Amino acid sequence: MIYQDLFYPAGVAVFGSVKPGKLAAVIINRLKEGNMPNVYAVNPKAQGMENVPGCDSVLKLKGQVQLAVIAAPAAIVKDILEECGQAGIKAAAIITSGFSEAGNVQGEQELLEIASRYGMRFVGPNCAGVVNTHSNLLATLETRPPKGNIAIISQSGAVGGILMSMAKAQKIGISKFVSFGNGLDLNMMEFLEWMKTDDETKVVAIYMEAVKNGRAFMKVLSELTEIKPVVIVKAGHSSAGQRAALSHTGSMAGVDAVFDAALGQCGAVRAESLEDLFDICRGFSALPEIKGERVLIVTNSGGPGVMTTDKSEEVRLSLPEPSQNMKETLGKFLPSFASIKNPVDLTVEGTGEQYRDALANALEEYDAAVALYIGTPYLKSAPIAEGIIQAGKSTGKPIAVSLSVGTDMNESLDRLEQEGIPAFISGERAVKVFAKMAQYYKCKKLGKTFEASSMPTVGTVLPNNLLEPDVKELLQKNNISVPPYSFVHTAEEAAQSGEELGWPVVIKVVSPQIIHKSDVGGVLLGIDSPNKAREAFKTLEKIAEGRDFRGAIMYHMLDLGREVIIGLTNDASFGPVVVFGLGGIYTEVLKDVVFKVAPVDEKTALTMIKSIKSYKLLEGIRGGKSIDMQFLAKTISELSYFPFKYTNIREMDLNPVFAYEDGVIAVDARIVTDNEA
Amino acid sequence: MIYQDLFYPAGVAVFGSVKPGKLAAVIINRLKEGNMPNVYAVNPKAQGMENVPGCDSVLKLKGQVQLAVIAAPAAIVKDILEECGQAGIKAAAIITSGFSEAGNVQGEQELLEIASRYGMRFVGPNCAGVVNTHSNLLATLETRPPKGNIAIISQSGAVGGILMSMAKAQKIGISKFVSFGNGLDLNMMEFLEWMKTDDETKVVAIYMEAVKNGRAFMKVLSELTEIKPVVIVKAGHSSAGQRAALSHTGSMAGVDAVFDAALGQCGAVRAESLEDLFDICRGFSALPEIKGERVLIVTNSGGPGVMTTDKSEEVRLSLPEPSQNMKETLGKFLPSFASIKNPVDLTVEGTGEQYRDALANALEEYDAAVALYIGTPYLKSAPIAEGIIQAGKSTGKPIAVSLSVGTDMNESLDRLEQEGIPAFISGERAVKVFAKMAQYYKCKKLGKTFEASSMPTVGTVLPNNLLEPDVKELLQKNNISVPPYSFVHTAEEAAQSGEELGWPVVIKVVSPQIIHKSDVGGVLLGIDSPNKAREAFKTLEKIAEGRDFRGAIMYHMLDLGREVIIGLTNDASFGPVVVFGLGGIYTEVLKDVVFKVAPVDEKTALTMIKSIKSYKLLEGIRGGKSIDMQFLAKTISELSYFPFKYTNIREMDLNPVFAYEDGVIAVDARIVTDNEA
Repeated sequence: MIYQDLFYPAGVAVFGSVKPGKLAAVIINRLKEGNMPNVYAVNPKAQGMENVPGCDSVLKLKGQVQLAVIAAPAAIVKDILEECGQAGIKAAAIITSGFSEAGNVQGEQELLEIASRYGMRFVGPNCAGVVNTHSNLLATLETRPPKGNIAIISQSGAVGGILMSMAKAQKIGISKFVSFGNGLDLNMMEFLEWMKTDDETKVVAIYMEAVKNGRAFMKVLSELTEIKPVVIVKAGHSSAGQRAALSHTGSMAGVDAVFDAALGQCGAVRAESLEDLFDICRGFSALPEIKGERVLIVTNSGGPGVMTTDKSEEVRLSLPEPSQNMKETLGKFLPSFASIKNPVDLTVEGTGEQYRDALANALEEYDAAVALYIGTPYLKSAPIAEGIIQAGKSTGKPIAVSLSVGTDMNESLDRLEQEGIPAFISGERAVKVFAKMAQYYKCKKLGKTFEASSMPTVGTVLPNNLLEPDVKELLQKNNISVPPYSFVHTAEEAAQSGEELGWPVVIKVVSPQIIHKSDVGGVLLGIDSPNKAREAFKTLEKIAEGRDFRGAIMYHMLDLGREVIIGLTNDASFGPVVVFGLGGIYTEVLKDVVFKVAPVDEKTALTMIKSIKSYKLLEGIRGGKSIDMQFLAKTISELSYFPFKYTNIREMDLNPVFAYEDGVIAVDARIVTDNEA
Repeated sequence: MIYQDLFYPAGVAVFGSVKPGKLAAVIINRLKEGNMPNVYAVNPKAQGMENVPGCDSVLKLKGQVQLAVIAAPAAIVKDILEECGQAGIKAAAIITSGFSEAGNVQGEQELLEIASRYGMRFVGPNCAGVVNTHSNLLATLETRPPKGNIAIISQSGAVGGILMSMAKAQKIGISKFVSFGNGLDLNMMEFLEWMKTDDETKVVAIYMEAVKNGRAFMKVLSELTEIKPVVIVKAGHSSAGQRAALSHTGSMAGVDAVFDAALGQCGAVRAESLEDLFDICRGFSALPEIKGERVLIVTNSGGPGVMTTDKSEEVRLSLPEPSQNMKETLGKFLPSFASIKNPVDLTVEGTGEQYRDALANALEEYDAAVALYIGTPYLKSAPIAEGIIQAGKSTGKPIAVSLSVGTDMNESLDRLEQEGIPAFISGERAVKVFAKMAQYYKCKKLGKTFEASSMPTVGTVLPNNLLEPDVKELLQKNNISVPPYSFVHTAEEAAQSGEELGWPVVIKVVSPQIIHKSDVGGVLLGIDSPNKAREAFKTLEKIAEGRDFRGAIMYHMLDLGREVIIGLTNDASFGPVVVFGLGGIYTEVLKDVVFKVAPVDEKTALTMIKSIKSYKLLEGIRGGKSIDMQFLAKTISELSYFPFKYTNIREMDLNPVFAYEDGVIAVDARIVTDNEA
């Protein structure tokens, strides 16, 4: 199995010059540094290195090598790969650059062709290699990280290098590391897939810049987050520029909002920076599940307690005070000058026992705790650390710490880490981590909101340039309410239809050659009698003269409801995306919209409605009544399924939709199919 | 002079037990560690320490000691202070705790009394002491920081301790440090004042939790930022809870927004966390002025470049591409595979010379640059560092770096720091610093927006419960437009007045006993004839029966304008604050309001208008015309001066104000004076 060969090879062949400073020499040194036993240098002169035999052909190593690490010049990589194939090697890491990233696409395709011929799989080219701390595999140019349970998958070699260097400096335990460079063969998808069954990995950290097939990515990501947390840094959210989301309302939000929605729908956690990425991973790596958002802070000084409180509120954790009972319990063993609120402030006199007892008792009422300890350079922090460790053991709940200043600080931090209590630079960082962890576990409990994993290949194809009556019919057929209407073909029909719909009515021209009806005077409002209806029809007929006139569509004029917009757009990575927002300036000026990768069920649609800033307007303010949320959610959900029933929808908007106390009506709609301009 | 005695004493007396582990002993060790020559231990037994003579009374040291550091038990501090007074000592740092922070207010007042009797000034009690790296003064329990040009003033001893420990660990050069504990005597104000003339300090870092006299604080802060940058972390922005800003529209924003506005008006820079605080201070400390917001990124790898680009956009820096000419210039010496955009990506092959040449040339078109270099563990970064240093020297513009990974990384970072090029953990951090620096220098160039420093002691006192016609008159007198109105006292006057105002009119009851006019039916709309006016007047008379009926106020019904709110509120720290926002849901639901400490001139009022999110609505969307910004700014400014003319205004709102294409009218107003409920 490729995964086995790639991450647990019994022998590794390194291709390329082993002269000092050359890549192959560096990699061999790394492999030896990592204590890999069977390493071979393969190069034309059969030059070896200290303890590493040289060999002029990998064919001579048949059976002894499972992984080829290629750092030879680009021109000869294909020959090496061919020979590896002949030698029965199934896995390779191609470090060598000079392929598609430098315009050499053909050279890259040749590699793919050779590999597929031999059933080989490879990482790269132009990659930073692979690491498995659990099998002594350090087939990379990068720093050797400590052993642990965090896997790193990086789309950028440089960022991978930074992460490995940070891991070493901050003593962050890594299980696997892979940076797949051009990702020509093995890439994000395969590694995510493998992470599902990798028992040495408890949490997966990802740095990525682009998503090729968003839906396939979402599928495997969703499956993986069911099993273990995945934390992602996505760069490039500004560089690609912003683009229109609901086409005709202008640039409302960038594609980054779609990526963000996709991650949320998959239950993955997004980190803002590499520092955040490691902070969050360390939380998941060390701590048990956090079951809610109630957090206790125990501190020995005010300032850091206050800053942690501020940040907790910002990240929406809850910091309730201990119950009256608990306050009494704590009061029994805490000194009178301690402040028993939240934070619990033990003051500068706080002892290890007090930290232990305050945490161990109060945690009964909380989901997690942050212990802050600010010492002075002449006092030992070890007793505090021990107190916290004991509390952690007795409660089994997540505790994070931030300790500052002290002669023995490093020893204390090491002790805490050993006992599964992560230390962060500040209390603020700790609560930020708790918030992300709580988000992951909450999402896992509620179940994923993303289901449909791929686009349908069969479905109905809609005709181009659908006429207004066609669109209305289509909506009705798909359980989206439209205003009562009639499609009339004569002045007499118009007069009669008005009687049925109830005066006053609106009457609009229907012609495939008239798209912007208002611009040509093709929309007549306030028609309130049979005679006016007849006249109106004739006016429209005249307007359409010389064009393909199909008749007129008539509506009873509706009471104004709360105006909302529901749209569908097509994301380059993720395909159909459903967008919701309040109409007019809320969408246009305030950009108060929410995205989800389509389709969404009614439950998810309801969370969309609730997540916009202007939600209160829908709930009703100043004694106004709430609009029909359930009906609105149903309408959003119904629309989100359109691209899965009709395969050629590029964009679609319901705008405006009138939301009432009872019911929701799509007043106007617009569909653009794939072939339309 | 106290400042001299406090920060540059020739001799220091330390009071308290010198037994190992006792505070006085720790402080004496710190002082000796800092190489302070004349240190004396003063305690009843005249116990000294190694190289530090003991003495049983400070009177014996008369003339040899300028600073007393007191770490003796609280009960005897007053006696020590008395003796210091007798010995002619003018400055003291009282480390001892157990005063007001523990409820001992009286003990604290005694200290103040003694000090004032002898013309002494002191820091503390309950403080972490003072440090001056430029005079070998380390009169503190905290870590010894490196010498430099950043002064730290901390309202929290614990946070001071964290900062000192961070300074040591991150090699951040400190000039002065003071943590003033209870701040009974010397506190924020005095230290800010002193910082103005402290030539050893280039930038002032502040940690604070509360502001006592906001206006005095603003005055000295404004003066200080004229001279040097001040960077502030303010904690406690959530804990105090949120409170109503415009009273009747509910809780729109917390006092933190006022603090934020105050800092902005004073030209100070706010940092989000202690890490940010030091990052920003290091920028100011090391770099020359940044003259604009155009930033160049030079990198050797994509990922970190992209993340830095993302962050730049977030912090609103501008990242234009080099001009065509510049691209050609750069193209001459950069390799063909380098990407000459912004970021300039030299790729993994980037050399020190290329960094130097790219930076030195392109910086002509930019205000600052970030150089990113991500190496590998086996490559030296020294040549890159040298290239960047040379570019810095030749351009004289600010350059920051982020270097990662490399055998000689620490040496390179030290070299860069020596040459005034600060290194940050990431490019994101570097651009965040640039953004804050640019904000400071921009604000300094534009001039402060805060002028009036203190509240007037004389001024007109408004009567309580002003009637609507009184309020309208008051507004008119102060150049705020109101709708044409008349105050009528008979039915006949009402009929006649309607003719003059023009039908239709609104007519409202006027009575000091009817506050909520609408609730009792005291507002009649759409009156469109003399007869109806007479009837209306009689109706109002009837409604007011048994109450103090003063007549009726009449308005011609106005066309609707764009609805805005302008308010005045009283902040506990900063006094009168002016608030602006769009009416209705923009203020209530979307909390889209802006605060400034009053008064504001028209220029500042204009920046307020432009800073709300819904500004575009005022500018006009979909072809609508802009409202009269200048008139609106004038109205905001006029209102902001009310508390400086009328001394008993507690709250005042103009709500709604109708803003038109030409002009702005305050339709309704409400004033609450200090004595009203």
